[in-house]
Amino acid sequence: MEIPSPKGFYYSTVKAGIKYRDRYDLALIYSKKPAQAAGVFTTNQIKAAPVKVCMKRIKSGFAQAIILNSGNANACTGKKGIEDTIEITEKLAQKLNINKELILPLSTGVIGMPMPMERILPALNELASNLGNAEPLQVAQAIMTTDTFPKISSKQINTASGVITILGICKGAGMISPNMATMLSVILTDARIDAELLREALKIAVSDSFNSITVDGDMSTNDTVLLLANGESGTDKIERKSPLWRLFKDALNEVCLELAKLIVKDGEGATKFITINVRGAKTIADAKRVAKAVANSPLVKTAFYGEDPNWGRIIAAAGYSGVPVKEEKIEIYINGICLFEKGLPTMREEELKDSLKQREIEVLINLNLGKSQTRLFTTDLSEEYVRVNSAYRT
Amino acid sequence: MEIPSPKGFYYSTVKAGIKYRDRYDLALIYSKKPAQAAGVFTTNQIKAAPVKVCMKRIKSGFAQAIILNSGNANACTGKKGIEDTIEITEKLAQKLNINKELILPLSTGVIGMPMPMERILPALNELASNLGNAEPLQVAQAIMTTDTFPKISSKQINTASGVITILGICKGAGMISPNMATMLSVILTDARIDAELLREALKIAVSDSFNSITVDGDMSTNDTVLLLANGESGTDKIERKSPLWRLFKDALNEVCLELAKLIVKDGEGATKFITINVRGAKTIADAKRVAKAVANSPLVKTAFYGEDPNWGRIIAAAGYSGVPVKEEKIEIYINGICLFEKGLPTMREEELKDSLKQREIEVLINLNLGKSQTRLFTTDLSEEYVRVNSAYRT
Repeated sequence: MEIPSPKGFYYSTVKAGIKYRDRYDLALIYSKKPAQAAGVFTTNQIKAAPVKVCMKRIKSGFAQAIILNSGNANACTGKKGIEDTIEITEKLAQKLNINKELILPLSTGVIGMPMPMERILPALNELASNLGNAEPLQVAQAIMTTDTFPKISSKQINTASGVITILGICKGAGMISPNMATMLSVILTDARIDAELLREALKIAVSDSFNSITVDGDMSTNDTVLLLANGESGTDKIERKSPLWRLFKDALNEVCLELAKLIVKDGEGATKFITINVRGAKTIADAKRVAKAVANSPLVKTAFYGEDPNWGRIIAAAGYSGVPVKEEKIEIYINGICLFEKGLPTMREEELKDSLKQREIEVLINLNLGKSQTRLFTTDLSEEYVRVNSAYRT
Repeated sequence: MEIPSPKGFYYSTVKAGIKYRDRYDLALIYSKKPAQAAGVFTTNQIKAAPVKVCMKRIKSGFAQAIILNSGNANACTGKKGIEDTIEITEKLAQKLNINKELILPLSTGVIGMPMPMERILPALNELASNLGNAEPLQVAQAIMTTDTFPKISSKQINTASGVITILGICKGAGMISPNMATMLSVILTDARIDAELLREALKIAVSDSFNSITVDGDMSTNDTVLLLANGESGTDKIERKSPLWRLFKDALNEVCLELAKLIVKDGEGATKFITINVRGAKTIADAKRVAKAVANSPLVKTAFYGEDPNWGRIIAAAGYSGVPVKEEKIEIYINGICLFEKGLPTMREEELKDSLKQREIEVLINLNLGKSQTRLFTTDLSEEYVRVNSAYRT
């Protein structure tokens, strides 16, 4: 299957040997001309060096290249970490013959280790000269860490003036939480649109996708989502008043949601994909707190792993979420079967026996206190999760 | 080893067959005269029926008997649950010939199942007439659920007017979090002291013990700590101004801390006992948030299970705790070895190789931002935790 790629973007990957030998671990994305750019970054107060550099550079609203590496997060590396990141982009800028401020760096991997500059710097020449030799899928592969498969998604919008393509590439498997833990995502489009609108569209899309997933509640130091639009589609410019604006936002949401779901599906040791719906909350903030408490409860997660319709652990999590709830008003459904209402269990667990064996589980918690709602995607908690995370050194 | 028991308290246990046949699952503690009483209860908004009844009755400051059962939590059981609890204490009150308002009920076990009244009510006669046939250890055994050993602790205070004994009995293994999840504890003393001072002493003791432990961050619907003082020691009355007041508080703290540590040691699937110290916070609330984020991080917990000194996961957890921290000021120590300071790793992990194999791990996080500190006890996260909790129906 050919994945449609937006016009005017070129890709390359090399084996720099950052952590492992003989694997592609350094990737470059290059736009033939400077693109409008927007970004969303980790809310963790401990931010990796590349995150700090990206946050500063993207303020201009422009970017032309993105350099991504796996194997080393360049986090908790002090001043030297910042200097290393800047030097990498400086050297790359010379080879690409562009301003270094137009290059955005993304890193993922081990925390607290200095970047192996002696291996990265010599690889930059090949990286720059190889441009066009790789596909987006190879970029997705180069940034994998504990991911078991590369993650990519693409959507096209047909307009009177031509086709707009949106392509998303991302990595992330463990430490996935609302607010995007150890998650890198790059979204590229050939739409003609200004950075101001890009920022607005990205904020909405991230909130409903990457910030609505959780595997274990942890947030990393490196999470970044970048959105670049180079206008190479030749289609009409997207303005706030044009009908295209809505279509663009919808397509961007779809791409982000698809990527976010892929991350959850690749959750470390996950055997279930669980959607937590919370309705009837007084505010969206309340709905999110309840959803997060339920989604992050190790007891709820292990129950689903055991295929046990344990509504008791769900209601207990809602009860300690900090949101005022009323026991006699709460309704809990799993896969459409009501298990708790009017303060009492319905004793219908037996009806769920088969459907809990499926990979996809749908939980609905209606607080019946208001009109706000939210949706969160998560996984179960398996012995495999413990195995992966007790052995893997982030 | 004989466990010293306070004067004037009597115990009995029976096999009522609440969930399993042929195990002691119903226990009674009786004071020869009404005791001064205080209690601390779950902050979960979904409260079990016995918790609601206890909270109401203990307002009087008096109690004479405690009835405890395992096998059924009587939580999420609606009005019927409350009626059942009241009926049990009513029938027991008749047999003990005391006012039912002086009986405090405690339950633990499965959520959402009606109490098996047809098995509990007929057992009350034997329970009342057996008084004096059991020891505190048997009471601790009768209230075990996923506990692998009974939990009991006792301290004595020598005074000029005689000996005061404080005895603590508790259960709890899974779902243990600050704010006491699935944790029942009864503390009995023959001290002469008023309910007002008991409340004050209990609040402090619980804060430094039961509310300073966490296994998986979940809080149950049934958590209760009761403290009864019947004055049978014949010693001088403890007043706020008497030197005994301090001795009493210290001994109570010791009993509670010992019980709390036993709960952590019995954490489901736990292989490590981890103490998280946070220092240099601006406020105690800040220190607690950081400690809790670190202690509840599945990534930190699995790292310790894997005997990996992963300070990166610790600093990441501190970073997303919500407390303002400064990367360049944070210091992280594990078992006395400094692993991170001045914004950089010290690369001393090698020195920890042997000490991480020990059962007890000491973590110190100095934020260097203020003078407040806290201490939290927790466990690692093992495959066994997942096995226990995916199979056990709470």
